[in-house]
Amino acid sequence: MKEPYSFTFYTASWYRKSPYWQRTVEAGCTSWDLYNHMLIPTLYDDDEKEYWHLVRDVTVWDVGVERQVEITGPDAARFTQLLTCRDLSRCEVMQCKYAPIIAPSGGIVNDPILLRLGENHFWLSLADSDALLYALGVQAFAGLDVEVREPDVSPLQVQGPRAKEVIRDLFGEAVMNLRYYWCSDANLDGIPVVVSRTGWTGEVGYEIYLRYASRGLDLWDAVIKAGEPYGIRAIAPSDQRRLEAGIFNYGNDMGVEDTPFHITGMERLVEFSADFIGKESLQRVAAEGVDRKLVGVEIGGEPFRMWLEDFWPVRHGGREVGRLTSASHSFRLKKNIGYAWVPIELAAPGAELELESPDGPVSAVTTALPFLDPTKDVPKS
Amino acid sequence: MKEPYSFTFYTASWYRKSPYWQRTVEAGCTSWDLYNHMLIPTLYDDDEKEYWHLVRDVTVWDVGVERQVEITGPDAARFTQLLTCRDLSRCEVMQCKYAPIIAPSGGIVNDPILLRLGENHFWLSLADSDALLYALGVQAFAGLDVEVREPDVSPLQVQGPRAKEVIRDLFGEAVMNLRYYWCSDANLDGIPVVVSRTGWTGEVGYEIYLRYASRGLDLWDAVIKAGEPYGIRAIAPSDQRRLEAGIFNYGNDMGVEDTPFHITGMERLVEFSADFIGKESLQRVAAEGVDRKLVGVEIGGEPFRMWLEDFWPVRHGGREVGRLTSASHSFRLKKNIGYAWVPIELAAPGAELELESPDGPVSAVTTALPFLDPTKDVPKS
Repeated sequence: MKEPYSFTFYTASWYRKSPYWQRTVEAGCTSWDLYNHMLIPTLYDDDEKEYWHLVRDVTVWDVGVERQVEITGPDAARFTQLLTCRDLSRCEVMQCKYAPIIAPSGGIVNDPILLRLGENHFWLSLADSDALLYALGVQAFAGLDVEVREPDVSPLQVQGPRAKEVIRDLFGEAVMNLRYYWCSDANLDGIPVVVSRTGWTGEVGYEIYLRYASRGLDLWDAVIKAGEPYGIRAIAPSDQRRLEAGIFNYGNDMGVEDTPFHITGMERLVEFSADFIGKESLQRVAAEGVDRKLVGVEIGGEPFRMWLEDFWPVRHGGREVGRLTSASHSFRLKKNIGYAWVPIELAAPGAELELESPDGPVSAVTTALPFLDPTKDVPKS
Repeated sequence: MKEPYSFTFYTASWYRKSPYWQRTVEAGCTSWDLYNHMLIPTLYDDDEKEYWHLVRDVTVWDVGVERQVEITGPDAARFTQLLTCRDLSRCEVMQCKYAPIIAPSGGIVNDPILLRLGENHFWLSLADSDALLYALGVQAFAGLDVEVREPDVSPLQVQGPRAKEVIRDLFGEAVMNLRYYWCSDANLDGIPVVVSRTGWTGEVGYEIYLRYASRGLDLWDAVIKAGEPYGIRAIAPSDQRRLEAGIFNYGNDMGVEDTPFHITGMERLVEFSADFIGKESLQRVAAEGVDRKLVGVEIGGEPFRMWLEDFWPVRHGGREVGRLTSASHSFRLKKNIGYAWVPIELAAPGAELELESPDGPVSAVTTALPFLDPTKDVPKS
């Protein structure tokens, strides 16, 4: 298939650059996206090369765009619980949660990773929406004593099978051995960071949350140096790898008009043992059921180049019934995979669909998620 | 000066396209920005040509990125008043207000144009932040009966000295004669729209709010056809013209950490006769005064190409005291103009500053706003 439409983009003072920007340019980044009003690398040299490096070796990503909402103060735990459908009574200090932020309607405001850094100290590591503003709106009448702000924190991701060795060499065995979705304070030559055992890949991976942007180049250089023996390289976030892993992208796959019950696999994140904004709405949705669902699809036709440019209409039985929101070519599965909104009666795996591509109809079939068995070996060549 | 850094940008399903997208491509648009998660034209052929067309003739802009927050329901007026520091008891039905949205801290969440379409029916026509999420957060505990959502509305701007004739030919004399900051329902061959006498230029201008995206191409074509006798052309929003007019850009010039009292000319928008979120914070700021201010600056050196790529540090007396947030070359004033954050003691016109450009120091001096006298004639050639 054709590459997405491209054009010359001019940087401007209304787009923030990450503290790693200069190093990403030097490392050969050629294209960026915009995310939380900031530039994020989207292509270095070749998305397939970058993918194979991620799944076979180890990679570093500039994800300074993952802005944090920091919640502190005597009522921080109560306030943060209001924002998310996860039950935070089950979240220990230094534990992380994939924590959808919920609107009064039950819709998804953002789907951050929550880090609990203290009893009353939280970070929400955001996807692409201004959830800081949502939290400030809630603060207006919640009657709780909290401070809500964006701290000076800029993450890097270190992802890939050799990430453990890189993290061990940087921070020691204890940090390397962090359990999945736990985090730790750490320090690198005087640079204070938090390290979490999380990432946007389904591979072994970590995120390093730099606490002072002014030390960005130092941190980048230290990671590259530690990673050299393991063949580290900078890549852009991999749309192919996140699709294989069944990971969603806020904005195109879902938005504030969708609840977790509308998204395959997110239902389990709604924990009614907690009290949160939108709980009654979600209880109603849970009781009544949903009439549409975001599901996995395998897609026919030529291999996708890069990623989906535009939503494609989804047709079934001669009428338009939904839309394709994401699609890429899985280099390992050797097929096109993506997500589509379909009516609930077509949500089970095996439903046959027709996609309206700009070049004509393409067949698709609904599929269980994730596409890739996480226990499956990566082919070595 | 050098053009801003540029690179190849690939479109993707996570960026929405406006309903006018196809026509902007056909009209020769070559570069887009990202704004409210959507693509907005940023350059057709030449920013200077586009500027002169705007100030001498008439132009059409795709500003579908101006997303609306629609507030309806029995308590819509009370709820909307909570969001803004403008006193809405002085806002009649079909009147518009430049209405900063205020956080509990007094900071600016967004600076939309508010349209009052009914006693209890409002649109906030947004700048570049997800203020819908802020309004949903406020809704959580405000205890008011409202619906808050993003409606299917996509504005066009028609700006320039001959805009009146175009609007007359499209919608008749009554709409042409709208007073500044008033709006009207209108209809064009069955396409329902709202027309407001507003814009981002300081020129005579209107915004046409398309109510159904599916009619976007029809509306665009009708505007182009009506504008032909007056020499209409499509241009991108003009950074030069908005700077001349003293208009700010949310995101780089100001953000949620700044209050209206920090921005030259926005002080007058705070109306303490109203009750709104952040009022106590703003009363405290008003009483205590601010320690820094966003002011106009005239900037020396070579003419700017396009716009400012990155914030430049502002120095005074040998130390860094602030930052330059916007800068372009005014083709009419034949000088570089922009905005800078400075300590309050340097905020009065006439303070001499040094800017740290990537190519070395550049002199600047603080200046009254707006840069361009709105009553001044435009040179005809």
